[in-house]
Amino acid sequence: MRIVIVGFQSAGLTAAATARLYNREAKITVIERRSYATYHPCGLPFVIGGEVPELRDLVETAPRLQGIDVRLGVEAKAINVKEKTVEVLDLKTLQVEKIPYDKLILATGSVALRPPIPGINLGNVFSLRTIEDGEKILSALPNSRKAVVVGAGPIGVETASALKERGLDVVLIEMMPNVLPGMLDPDMAGIVAERLVKSGVRVICSKAVKELRGVERVSSVVLEGEEIPTDLVVMAIGVKPDVELAVRAGLALGPTKTIAVDDHLRTSNPDIFAIGDCAEARCLITKRPVRSQLATTAIRMGRVAGINAAGGDEIFDGVLNAVVTIAGGLEVASVGLTATVAGEAGIEAVSARVRCLNKPHYFPGAEPVMIKLVAERKGQRLLGGQFLGTGAAERANRLALAIRKEMTAKEFSKVDYCYAPPVSDSIDPMVVAAEALLRRR
Amino acid sequence: MRIVIVGFQSAGLTAAATARLYNREAKITVIERRSYATYHPCGLPFVIGGEVPELRDLVETAPRLQGIDVRLGVEAKAINVKEKTVEVLDLKTLQVEKIPYDKLILATGSVALRPPIPGINLGNVFSLRTIEDGEKILSALPNSRKAVVVGAGPIGVETASALKERGLDVVLIEMMPNVLPGMLDPDMAGIVAERLVKSGVRVICSKAVKELRGVERVSSVVLEGEEIPTDLVVMAIGVKPDVELAVRAGLALGPTKTIAVDDHLRTSNPDIFAIGDCAEARCLITKRPVRSQLATTAIRMGRVAGINAAGGDEIFDGVLNAVVTIAGGLEVASVGLTATVAGEAGIEAVSARVRCLNKPHYFPGAEPVMIKLVAERKGQRLLGGQFLGTGAAERANRLALAIRKEMTAKEFSKVDYCYAPPVSDSIDPMVVAAEALLRRR
Repeated sequence: MRIVIVGFQSAGLTAAATARLYNREAKITVIERRSYATYHPCGLPFVIGGEVPELRDLVETAPRLQGIDVRLGVEAKAINVKEKTVEVLDLKTLQVEKIPYDKLILATGSVALRPPIPGINLGNVFSLRTIEDGEKILSALPNSRKAVVVGAGPIGVETASALKERGLDVVLIEMMPNVLPGMLDPDMAGIVAERLVKSGVRVICSKAVKELRGVERVSSVVLEGEEIPTDLVVMAIGVKPDVELAVRAGLALGPTKTIAVDDHLRTSNPDIFAIGDCAEARCLITKRPVRSQLATTAIRMGRVAGINAAGGDEIFDGVLNAVVTIAGGLEVASVGLTATVAGEAGIEAVSARVRCLNKPHYFPGAEPVMIKLVAERKGQRLLGGQFLGTGAAERANRLALAIRKEMTAKEFSKVDYCYAPPVSDSIDPMVVAAEALLRRR
Repeated sequence: MRIVIVGFQSAGLTAAATARLYNREAKITVIERRSYATYHPCGLPFVIGGEVPELRDLVETAPRLQGIDVRLGVEAKAINVKEKTVEVLDLKTLQVEKIPYDKLILATGSVALRPPIPGINLGNVFSLRTIEDGEKILSALPNSRKAVVVGAGPIGVETASALKERGLDVVLIEMMPNVLPGMLDPDMAGIVAERLVKSGVRVICSKAVKELRGVERVSSVVLEGEEIPTDLVVMAIGVKPDVELAVRAGLALGPTKTIAVDDHLRTSNPDIFAIGDCAEARCLITKRPVRSQLATTAIRMGRVAGINAAGGDEIFDGVLNAVVTIAGGLEVASVGLTATVAGEAGIEAVSARVRCLNKPHYFPGAEPVMIKLVAERKGQRLLGGQFLGTGAAERANRLALAIRKEMTAKEFSKVDYCYAPPVSDSIDPMVVAAEALLRRR
């Protein structure tokens, strides 16, 4: 049994390690174009901000994968599905080689999106996706006083906060009407935007970047009705799945232009699996195809494909896109559908928002947390939640279970929870939110 | 519709507030022997420790209950089930009155257990249950250098830590083989005990207190083979349900000697409900009667009885006893069955314990967390979990959902979760624990 995995990020690494655990005999080869091992792109903003000391801290150095042939600096050029080989190019020696597989796993990931606007190729216009991107931004910092971040998704928001931490004047620009548009409804996003503004970031929503201007280096960003002077730009408008290899091998893409997979993560070719950012996921709630493009989804898919490629039988049933980010020091998390997204999906939804303290009012250090829950109007099956404040991520994790198990607001309002004054209040904010939802019937 | 509620702690307060919301017309009367309103007994150790400044901070002062007749300093003496009245005594005026009810809710709670050992009535032998108990301990502190806490449940552990915070030499004595015996298996409890010892508390397990010695005031505690000098003793060996009124009214008790109730929290008399510490609960897993005696259970029961007494139809399906405490600065939580308790209940169980970081290894401030999951051997349905470290309570809350929805370790290992380096690692410790459990098959 020969398993070949293309790509050595979260998805590929997890698939390799899982296949190894599941099948001690299989020969496992990982092909990776980069010259360095798996790294943690989600850590990049925190190196930019100075919280994590070094970029190299983000690269996995420990040899966690015994008995797996990891070939760095080697690019997969083509798949021959008839003879079941991957043609690879060693980027150093320029030697070409064909590697045979019984099962192939594509974990080719995604690349940062660069919009085709005038000036996009000027100097100091960065993405923040690779270690090299991080190096470039860090070297630009000493000579920069102003920065513009384009895109207010989690990475954009974190990068804006990071650049502010470094003392720059920061403008964050989002084309959609609110920050964190996939994660939050406008009401919750407004609170996050306020927090960003309070931390000193200027936030501009509902405006697209038309042009970047400058001589060699970017010196301003042009929006409708405004030109913002800047020393650097970080484009954080999302990623583009890397599906080239798959397309050239004749594998089918799904409606989201990622590689179509079945519930075993098999592509249209039953000997080839696709996982991570390049693969299509399915929303557990709407059952529709979605791009997930989260490290956690990559890892969850990697486990399933690793086992299946190694001879097992595992199902990947879908995603709820649980996400957490930090915006101006505020923990912000989301899972499932926002009211906005539910509406777009044609689901009649109700929502309720509550503000509670995370500890009893009499306990020193009690902080406000905000919770918004979204449910189907009829029957009040839980669809999603948005969370601000300490513990947001864990609340989203808990709600993920409730959504997965198709709990109603009523059932959720009756669950067990822990209470001790230094940790939590006697009435759980999640229960308060569920009860608020019950009153919306 | 006249609803009378006896007892104005978590259960009674919640029942009153819920009945009010559910039925705007009902006449609601609450009878409470204490002269002050609802207070938070779980906050008492943190006043003793000085974290919460004042005892009076623990007493609810806000008039949260519009249109409810709360009668403080009034004791319910007898129930006449035929004429449907409660006979009450005003403790100030000594006037007796009969209050008619259509529905009666007993929320009489529990009192601190005092073991019948020699010396139990000496001075400076305290309980920690009421505001008055707190006052007594606080007044004894300035003249005390040594303290003994008897009973290493949550309150005992918190009180030992609190007295240590105040600079006393503290000995914590537990009759069972380990601290937090209901919450933790010996392996996890051992880690907590180490932490307590590190914080300066002496911990003695597997020994019963035989006698308290002293002249007027306690001066030593006698165990098998040892006599421990002390200036004060706090007895924290648990509580005794207050079922006197119920017994005298002829209501049935259950096997746990608390008031028997059905799934609507009705006692053997269909017009009388019982909730909180005085009422019997049912374990959601074993389906057996248990004493829950948690504020959270009282509140959850209060909601159900409040609605039912006011004409609604709500089910209380049982408890998983989710508990959190702080021991020597360590957050410790538990939910469901320990391996020990599962064994005692005749369930063949497997368990797995993992130690993970709560953030990526490269992120400053990453702390270890420990998780132990317990599942049925056959089929691996989740039965319980024990959690140490930051976030323990929220992890227990999440597992509570999984147990309630009868999830298996495998299903639980595949759930969605959030990841961002400042908040969590890319592989959720809960998933790591579930996967460890899978390998125990």
